Amino acid sequence: MVDWQRLSDGERTLLERLFWSDGLSRGELAASTDFSKSKANLAIASLIGRELIEESGAQPSSGGRRPEMLRLSHRMGVLAGIDIGATSVDVALLAPDMTVLDHRSEAADVRAGPVAVFARVQALLREARERCGVGAAQVLGIGVGVPGPVAFDSGMLVNPPLLPGWESFSIRDCLAEEYAAPVFVDNDVNIMALGTHWRLHGRLQNFLVIKIGTGIGCGIICHGAIYRGMDGAAGDVGHICVDPHGPPCHCGNAGCVEAMAAGPAIARMAEQAARAGESPRLKELLDRNGQLTPVDLGNASRAGDAAASAIVQQAGGQIGRMLAAVVNFFNPSHIFIGGGVTQIGPLFLASIRQSVYQRSLALSTRHLDIRYVPQIENAGVIGTGVMAVQETMLARAARL
Amino acid sequence: MVDWQRLSDGERTLLERLFWSDGLSRGELAASTDFSKSKANLAIASLIGRELIEESGAQPSSGGRRPEMLRLSHRMGVLAGIDIGATSVDVALLAPDMTVLDHRSEAADVRAGPVAVFARVQALLREARERCGVGAAQVLGIGVGVPGPVAFDSGMLVNPPLLPGWESFSIRDCLAEEYAAPVFVDNDVNIMALGTHWRLHGRLQNFLVIKIGTGIGCGIICHGAIYRGMDGAAGDVGHICVDPHGPPCHCGNAGCVEAMAAGPAIARMAEQAARAGESPRLKELLDRNGQLTPVDLGNASRAGDAAASAIVQQAGGQIGRMLAAVVNFFNPSHIFIGGGVTQIGPLFLASIRQSVYQRSLALSTRHLDIRYVPQIENAGVIGTGVMAVQETMLARAARL
Repeated sequence: MVDWQRLSDGERTLLERLFWSDGLSRGELAASTDFSKSKANLAIASLIGRELIEESGAQPSSGGRRPEMLRLSHRMGVLAGIDIGATSVDVALLAPDMTVLDHRSEAADVRAGPVAVFARVQALLREARERCGVGAAQVLGIGVGVPGPVAFDSGMLVNPPLLPGWESFSIRDCLAEEYAAPVFVDNDVNIMALGTHWRLHGRLQNFLVIKIGTGIGCGIICHGAIYRGMDGAAGDVGHICVDPHGPPCHCGNAGCVEAMAAGPAIARMAEQAARAGESPRLKELLDRNGQLTPVDLGNASRAGDAAASAIVQQAGGQIGRMLAAVVNFFNPSHIFIGGGVTQIGPLFLASIRQSVYQRSLALSTRHLDIRYVPQIENAGVIGTGVMAVQETMLARAARL
Repeated sequence: MVDWQRLSDGERTLLERLFWSDGLSRGELAASTDFSKSKANLAIASLIGRELIEESGAQPSSGGRRPEMLRLSHRMGVLAGIDIGATSVDVALLAPDMTVLDHRSEAADVRAGPVAVFARVQALLREARERCGVGAAQVLGIGVGVPGPVAFDSGMLVNPPLLPGWESFSIRDCLAEEYAAPVFVDNDVNIMALGTHWRLHGRLQNFLVIKIGTGIGCGIICHGAIYRGMDGAAGDVGHICVDPHGPPCHCGNAGCVEAMAAGPAIARMAEQAARAGESPRLKELLDRNGQLTPVDLGNASRAGDAAASAIVQQAGGQIGRMLAAVVNFFNPSHIFIGGGVTQIGPLFLASIRQSVYQRSLALSTRHLDIRYVPQIENAGVIGTGVMAVQETMLARAARL
């Protein structure tokens, strides 16, 4: 096991630059720090000697010499990434540079409870290790994403609405039976934000990732790092009130954006419109399938159904009201919107944008870019891998 | 002039620890870093030799030896702190450890325009330097607080509602005529947040300072540092909508918290209650003075006036609605509330608290502490001094 505590601040900076980069030559890595060239080269040589970084092979260059690119060494060990969705589990092994070595996804029902789900996760992880020839001791860190609120320090779920029975289950203790590696647990939208941050090479310092599905959550990157707040509850934007006279929410308050514009609210509005005879197209779909989804609504809207488009615009407008409050407070550079409800399509995004620009101050939206989240292959497990790397080898002692 | 670029990361860490501390002995300073003791002692000796830190004299200790305390050296030079309020200017000279060397405050009217105000500021600064025997070249950095939105990078005001004529005025260029030192400009609530952060020795990593006066603004400390957002607009919470069916706001939208619960809205509600005969006490005050203030309202409420108390509770409730949205998003550990409207008294604070706790999620308020901002002597100029120190000697190269 590598002792990350023994890394100097300078060595950690070099590992950090390399991790967030798209690959750097020795010269580029040395130049990316404020060390002198000779000091940087000495430190790089030392990190290579200790098998913390390695050459990944020559890269094509524009005509001149072909510099050898450096990466975090695959010899250090692996990270395990576990992404638990409401209806699926993904288990992967990743190299420290986030190369996916093995990745399996299968259907699962979180309502079966944590013991059953984690028995399966453990088996999948064991199989992955066998395929890769990796022992349990070579696992450097484990990242776990779950679809519910997490107290990050303890790794425990807190009042998870979609995960009854998970609150008293310690994912850490469960995995500690087989792995000495530290285990980090976070909610799915923070994982999505970390994965996005890494894919963008850490270039954006202050941005948000919003996930709109059964609920609405937000991952926050602030000063270049994930921001979890005092209790791990930061980003719980689904219960921001957008209309004090609005409908009741399961949280006990009225007019929460989640009660007005998340997946179930959108489906309910579509079904009401169908039953009220406002949309023959939605009526036909409802009669055929017994229910309507945001995708049905998006299809109807794109086909020119006025009632469907009105619902899409209303829901987008409510999301935009919530985001306008967040933009006035946080002034982010980008908002990336993801989650199942984005399948509604471009009118939903346009409605969100219109509402945000109308209700935020001009200075806050001067450079604001609102778009759907970039599609990233293996996004969930990469996000958990990024978390595991950040919390182990890249973790610095608290500054004060 | 000290060349801060030449400081190593380690030296900067030592200066940083010292700046945020309440004074540290050599041993304490060495122990506060993760350097080896010998490396720390060498670096401390070098910083003393270069007159960047110095001994401040023996401090009383609990019986044993009396260690010499270290501080940032007064020989380095001074910081200038300029705090411009709507009706006053404060000008101070501070040592690098935030000792106030000279401080004058006088009435001023920002509506007279920036040229007139800064002619006076320049004169006050010159007089202060003469009293302290400090030349213009010994000024290391200048911090300026203004009561309006600032684009921090350019130091220019942007659409300042209370400061017509200031938008095209460059405070930097004006001060550059006499001073080579860098000039940093920020809004008053960020300055209040920085001053509070320093007085609390940087111990709180994630908290908010809300200022409720003519407008409503918020200073954000995130990951231990002031957070200004993409355009310097972060914390502009006055235009968060708390009721889409609410009254129109000068920003063009409806139901902004500033239009419903800032000083002018509170005074208006009090005057309406007085005219409607709901409060003989307020009626009498209105007849006598021609207007009502939040202080009048607070006095009436404390004297048992039901109509006054209802207005206080309503305004506090609206502030709380806005803060509940912010708490759900940001999950801070503390919210400190300041500004003239806090003179209303404890019922206002209680109403804010009740509204926040009712409308925020339980996990977000588990450790949340909401209170009036701690009273700090020379708060404004110390906040500008903290900004100047942070942006000069403690500024680090961007990490990525």
